[in-house]
Amino acid sequence: MDKFFMEEALKEAKKAFEENEIPVGAVVVFEGRIVAKGRNNRNMEQDIAGHAELMALRTAGKVLGLHKLVNASIYTTLEPCPMCLGAIIQSRIKNLYFGAYDKKLGAVESFMKYKEFPDSSKTNIQGGILEIEASNLLKEFFIKMRNK
Amino acid sequence: MDKFFMEEALKEAKKAFEENEIPVGAVVVFEGRIVAKGRNNRNMEQDIAGHAELMALRTAGKVLGLHKLVNASIYTTLEPCPMCLGAIIQSRIKNLYFGAYDKKLGAVESFMKYKEFPDSSKTNIQGGILEIEASNLLKEFFIKMRNK
Repeated sequence: MDKFFMEEALKEAKKAFEENEIPVGAVVVFEGRIVAKGRNNRNMEQDIAGHAELMALRTAGKVLGLHKLVNASIYTTLEPCPMCLGAIIQSRIKNLYFGAYDKKLGAVESFMKYKEFPDSSKTNIQGGILEIEASNLLKEFFIKMRNK
Repeated sequence: MDKFFMEEALKEAKKAFEENEIPVGAVVVFEGRIVAKGRNNRNMEQDIAGHAELMALRTAGKVLGLHKLVNASIYTTLEPCPMCLGAIIQSRIKNLYFGAYDKKLGAVESFMKYKEFPDSSKTNIQGGILEIEASNLLKEFFIKMRNK
């Protein structure tokens, strides 16, 4: 785990913030470098798959081929939802690192438990990385939306 | 529920079969007509999101706008995996109808239980529709792959 990559995911989240999207960002890392980035754009694109993690995974699949994700890591600023966690586990990515916890939709440990997912043992998971920064960005976003 | 729409989903599955992809197909129905189709193309595209259901949902979101899926139905030939079920529930689609059950990845009742998913009460679910046809197509595919 390398905080540098979570900072890069946070940069993606900040771009989403500027675009009036819920600020979540993700990067996929392979052999020490970022091969894909994603940020939430679900509203703008009206795309259910427009979550940061799924976008980063899809780009990484195109760049590396899906089979290579076995040796990759994903850094995301928010605990993944069931859709994204399902995709992460199915991609057999090696490591999942996330920032803030999501009580409402989090599928790793907040709402669901990742061990209930098929093949979940293939992915190492660690949460709470730059948690305060990721969480504060989300809070700031919802305050901004309420004041609009 | 209308078997006609499941037959249309099966047609998509058969196209996937011809493309050497695991034969699963899906259609989204809104106001009595098909607004989106999808079929598995994960291998060809190296795209983790290339499952039939997610593809059909994404197209439907573009056509109708995500908010309208609340009144739509999805027909898919196979019990959805966690990724697809997560997306289906988050889309707040009204009805999910599926064909065959998937013991390995099925998230409705085979491997996971859909009631564990956040907001799962918003979607009505019925499985086993044209189950034998959907299941036989999958069996035929795996025999074909083994013989290759």
